[in-house]
Amino acid sequence: MLGLMQNQPLMISSLIEHANRHHGEEEIVSRRVEGDIHRTSYRQVAQRARQVAHALDALKLAFGDRVATLAWNGYRHLELYFGVSGTGRVLHTLNPRLHPDQIAWIANHAQDQVLCFDMTFLPIIKAIQGKATSIRHFVALCDADKLPADTGIAGLTSYEAWIAPHPTTYAWPDFDENSASSMCYTSGTTGNPKAALYSHRSTILHAFAGSMPDALNLSARDSVLPVVPMFHVNAWGLPYAGAMTGAKMVFPGPAMDGKSIFELIESEKVTFAAGVPTVWQMMLAHMQAGNLRFSTLRRTVIGGSACPPAMITAFNDDYGVEVLHAWGMTEMSPLGTVCTLKNKHLDLSPDDKMKVRLKQGRGLYGVDMKIVDPDGKELPWDGRTFGDLLVRGPWIIRDYFNAEGPSPLVDGWFPTGDVATIDADGYMQITDRSKDVIKSGGEWISSIDVENIAVAHPGVAMAACIGIKHPKWDERPIIAVVRKPGAQVSREELLAFYEGKIAKWQIPDDVVFVDAIPLGGTGKMQKTKLREQLRDYVLPGV
Amino acid sequence: MLGLMQNQPLMISSLIEHANRHHGEEEIVSRRVEGDIHRTSYRQVAQRARQVAHALDALKLAFGDRVATLAWNGYRHLELYFGVSGTGRVLHTLNPRLHPDQIAWIANHAQDQVLCFDMTFLPIIKAIQGKATSIRHFVALCDADKLPADTGIAGLTSYEAWIAPHPTTYAWPDFDENSASSMCYTSGTTGNPKAALYSHRSTILHAFAGSMPDALNLSARDSVLPVVPMFHVNAWGLPYAGAMTGAKMVFPGPAMDGKSIFELIESEKVTFAAGVPTVWQMMLAHMQAGNLRFSTLRRTVIGGSACPPAMITAFNDDYGVEVLHAWGMTEMSPLGTVCTLKNKHLDLSPDDKMKVRLKQGRGLYGVDMKIVDPDGKELPWDGRTFGDLLVRGPWIIRDYFNAEGPSPLVDGWFPTGDVATIDADGYMQITDRSKDVIKSGGEWISSIDVENIAVAHPGVAMAACIGIKHPKWDERPIIAVVRKPGAQVSREELLAFYEGKIAKWQIPDDVVFVDAIPLGGTGKMQKTKLREQLRDYVLPGV
Repeated sequence: MLGLMQNQPLMISSLIEHANRHHGEEEIVSRRVEGDIHRTSYRQVAQRARQVAHALDALKLAFGDRVATLAWNGYRHLELYFGVSGTGRVLHTLNPRLHPDQIAWIANHAQDQVLCFDMTFLPIIKAIQGKATSIRHFVALCDADKLPADTGIAGLTSYEAWIAPHPTTYAWPDFDENSASSMCYTSGTTGNPKAALYSHRSTILHAFAGSMPDALNLSARDSVLPVVPMFHVNAWGLPYAGAMTGAKMVFPGPAMDGKSIFELIESEKVTFAAGVPTVWQMMLAHMQAGNLRFSTLRRTVIGGSACPPAMITAFNDDYGVEVLHAWGMTEMSPLGTVCTLKNKHLDLSPDDKMKVRLKQGRGLYGVDMKIVDPDGKELPWDGRTFGDLLVRGPWIIRDYFNAEGPSPLVDGWFPTGDVATIDADGYMQITDRSKDVIKSGGEWISSIDVENIAVAHPGVAMAACIGIKHPKWDERPIIAVVRKPGAQVSREELLAFYEGKIAKWQIPDDVVFVDAIPLGGTGKMQKTKLREQLRDYVLPGV
Repeated sequence: MLGLMQNQPLMISSLIEHANRHHGEEEIVSRRVEGDIHRTSYRQVAQRARQVAHALDALKLAFGDRVATLAWNGYRHLELYFGVSGTGRVLHTLNPRLHPDQIAWIANHAQDQVLCFDMTFLPIIKAIQGKATSIRHFVALCDADKLPADTGIAGLTSYEAWIAPHPTTYAWPDFDENSASSMCYTSGTTGNPKAALYSHRSTILHAFAGSMPDALNLSARDSVLPVVPMFHVNAWGLPYAGAMTGAKMVFPGPAMDGKSIFELIESEKVTFAAGVPTVWQMMLAHMQAGNLRFSTLRRTVIGGSACPPAMITAFNDDYGVEVLHAWGMTEMSPLGTVCTLKNKHLDLSPDDKMKVRLKQGRGLYGVDMKIVDPDGKELPWDGRTFGDLLVRGPWIIRDYFNAEGPSPLVDGWFPTGDVATIDADGYMQITDRSKDVIKSGGEWISSIDVENIAVAHPGVAMAACIGIKHPKWDERPIIAVVRKPGAQVSREELLAFYEGKIAKWQIPDDVVFVDAIPLGGTGKMQKTKLREQLRDYVLPGV
């Protein structure tokens, strides 16, 4: 027997129309590429998103066609978020940090029809225009009079000229809520980039889950600064959650330096900010140098990579800002866990509280997690046992867009590629990447643990731990180390430094000093390349 | 093109399994019919809900069969919430405050197969057992040894004996999320009671929306006391939202007096409570008499009927508790609006803040609202113009269960039967019930406004304003008044009392003194009956 509730699909267009009706006057503030501060409102964003809808219709784009962006965080990008998805087309946020050849490859794979870009990225557009052959229309996100006379891009129009002729009213269509709404490519360490293809349903459910009090805790009284880019997994869903809750949005544009971010937080009375650790590191350095204080910022969510304890302490103790550690993946829309405390933690000592805060956090309702051993058997939630982390839920992918191979799912669960522990209270902590964990004598050694000790040595600038095949133990860890300029730390000194810090069998068998460790486009160590470089390496005594 | 996210239906069973995995140790505290305080946890509730699932399977109930409850707020009722819906059967919460004949009528209409009841309600069971003919099994919500030897109910078993033989593991089925999950009858002032039939999808979406920071703002750090009964629109969804967020739940059982409620708030460190104004009136009276203070209560949501300003002030100023005015209907699951302030209101004077707080509030994301004139034309959101309030959204009904007539929807919108204003910030304020509003000379007069002035007179105990047909003005208001014992207030005195308080044309044409105003089962004035009683009444001068 079916219930008798209204059949209303979950549509992304309903987010901006809710914001329009209930929070029409709320501000959307953007620092633009030109450097100035621009102010608009949800009402105007809604009107202009409807103009975008008409402009796309005028291009005769089909339902499901991809419209790409190469843009900073700003109001025009926000209008495209709603205008593109609202009409049933798919918003494809390209990552400008990739090499132009990769961008062209991705645009071709996605079969993008339109590309809207900030003028910052004109050089990329010039580099890809012959190569990204599916793109029929280029739109520059600028005023008509800011468009250079000769860009060399055929048929280039400015965004303002593109939308201006169209009415500000539009009848958003209702359609299957499982229809694709947006897509984001993730560049793994091996193989070609792969795209998560989000749906209207997954986006709305993710916005609900992400706005909850124990997640990002967003309300109409918040002023939200997404430092995390809108080309990076939809800025963790904040543009959608902002419209759902009616929060003021503050977009930093291209100015991601500590000074600019701090100034924006102060001038726009930001209460909540989200970003990766490196951005906060720059901001804290700027604040420490100038002995600055926050007036309104109350909490910040840090994700993308593990947050150093010192940063949590600085925010919390020095600046009175709550730090929420979060974890997710492009394949997860991205939010999986947020580290908000339970009642039982509130009376803990600062040290014990920190132990909880350093974990990636509790699964949001909607995200199921489990850890399994190599045979797929579920492991206990005791905070010590670690295993491969698998997730499932309505905002987690079941496959990649136009994938060549089979679905990545294992019995309906998505393997995250992370190794983690989960404690009895449901707090998950990433121990390592699955491909980096070292299997020695049936036990697992966390490469991250081994690296963290090495970089704590004053003579070490960077360190990467990898496993080397061993006839008896299967694998044994070694540590590749970049010395700090002028430092003289020796193999024996570093190995001795490990004593007492981890179990004897977890201490690396060898230290290899290198000039550099290969880094990827997003600054992560590329252990695959390091393993290639060391493919002729032989363990001592083997 | 469809997205590539996991196809995971929104199932009520996922709520209790989330709570089990992530908040297994969190407490569920109940005051029982026996008077004692009982403690359990989400883990145990999950286990026992699974036993309920097996017990229902053993009865060979079909998918969609109705399982009724006649029960106070407590852990066994909570187990039934998840056990019944989780298996695909429909939880039907009967209202014990209705007359046994009405209860029997409703049980027959719903075709209830099983009825689980608290021993308090044994007299009702005895009264309906020959009449509610669809019920095949009666289950008493008590221990096996608390079951009286001769109840006269054939085949009666205790809940504990019923579930005890069954395993605590169960594989919850996945099925269409639009399947019926629970139902609640609403007794209108005319015609037979009608049932809203909720679905798994609507219940989960409503739990998301209700838990949001600008709605009830529920987190794992909350201790939640639903004073609103679980037989009244699922206690406003709190049992579901509690499991979703991992909040501690505190159930008052049958003890709804001010002293018992206050003691429970203090002993269980309640942070959030929800109920109708009468309950809070009793509790505040108890507190004032004993000069008592709250230790942990931070906010309370008041709905069901408009909250008197004095109560908001008392909670806020005297006790430091934030009062959230909320509005909804059985047909809306029930939450439609919650009155949380926006940023712009925070600096208002206490008086101006109160003007906002007295409104029913802003629509939750997911609830669309509009006000229309008698021709169905949408009216402006200016805070002054009032019209018929219509709503739509995924947790609002499209029809009643086994309805005799056509769907109540008008162009896809549900007519609430309320007359309201909506201001530019989206705050809705109920002016009157549509059927009670008085249409005089093309203008509308709010019967509630007229009544509020009458009851402010020291000689008036109760007052009801109704419209009487008028040859020129269409309708004119009169006020039916019950004098306070010993009071001598006259017609002329009361009419004079109106002067300067409302416009001259809104002042009633006459005062009719009556011994009593007919009241319904839930204490609301039954103006239909009053109109019948006064059907021979003639306006002065007509």
